[in-house]
Amino acid sequence: MTNKKIPVGVSNRHIHLTKEHLHILFGEGYELNVWKDLSQPGQYAAEEKVDVVGNKGTLSGVRVLGPVRNETQIEVSITDSFKLGVKVPLRNSGDIANTAGCKIVGPKGEVTIEKGLIVAARHIHMHTKDAAEFGVSDKDIVKVKVEGERGLIFENVLVRVNEQFALEMHVDVDEGNAAGITKDTKVEII
Amino acid sequence: MTNKKIPVGVSNRHIHLTKEHLHILFGEGYELNVWKDLSQPGQYAAEEKVDVVGNKGTLSGVRVLGPVRNETQIEVSITDSFKLGVKVPLRNSGDIANTAGCKIVGPKGEVTIEKGLIVAARHIHMHTKDAAEFGVSDKDIVKVKVEGERGLIFENVLVRVNEQFALEMHVDVDEGNAAGITKDTKVEII
Repeated sequence: MTNKKIPVGVSNRHIHLTKEHLHILFGEGYELNVWKDLSQPGQYAAEEKVDVVGNKGTLSGVRVLGPVRNETQIEVSITDSFKLGVKVPLRNSGDIANTAGCKIVGPKGEVTIEKGLIVAARHIHMHTKDAAEFGVSDKDIVKVKVEGERGLIFENVLVRVNEQFALEMHVDVDEGNAAGITKDTKVEII
Repeated sequence: MTNKKIPVGVSNRHIHLTKEHLHILFGEGYELNVWKDLSQPGQYAAEEKVDVVGNKGTLSGVRVLGPVRNETQIEVSITDSFKLGVKVPLRNSGDIANTAGCKIVGPKGEVTIEKGLIVAARHIHMHTKDAAEFGVSDKDIVKVKVEGERGLIFENVLVRVNEQFALEMHVDVDEGNAAGITKDTKVEII
């Protein structure tokens, strides 16, 4: 077990689209434009944004992440869910069965999805080599300590190990603000 | 030391006004109207709301809490501070030296304050009898465990003891959402 520190990424609300939904929202044959590479290899924030419309309110300008996926998924904070007026469950990315849907509005069209809205459960991406160093395996649950005046210990943190992953913890905006996390924050598995 | 559970109140953004500022914002001689009593004896949410205007954005309809105080103080979340475009420090209530100010707009007038914007540090109100039961004193710093799928341990939690206080932990909206706190959540000092 190492005491190596882990960088933290605070994920703002974002959407992953299927190719089919991308074409409805932005036009037939449309392809996403890379705005900024993310820390996970091959993943990027696209230039494109959409509006996410709930029963009660709208989240405007929600960033699309690329590349396209097999299922459309929208990751919001609990704060966002109140604005939408939709009950959004805490889930691991990809686990969208029995979640609420919403309307998605793009510049060329709109889509109503039956499911796909989640609050993403906090997790740590690790390369296989990092996992060996930390002595953990894929799907382990660990505790993570954040130092500072808003210091806290996150319990129930999922470890995700893959040879394509770069070492980084992901939390949402509520969690980032609650723990006083900034772009320079590094955390520790305890 | 007891293992007694502590109820949690999630504080949304709010403002405490001086009598002078109340009169400028709502009119000479104006008095606050009680909308809802708070758990701390004598404290209440008023019917009145104001707009808080920062460099970049406005928080509309910020609830006034009563009764009036000796200094005007606005408590926001870090999420709110980004919307305002103002750097707001983490402080204990009442400690507003060297904090940022903003404009406050009411139905009858407006005030620009030079200081008063804080993110309130999490804390536990306790009656003297509770403090004895928990084995803690005023100004102690404790750790608090929140159970649940978003379970975590808050460090640096200030204990405030007074014969006028009712037992309750206060966190802000970012903290409440990060920990999955609802109105039924009870927490434990560890």
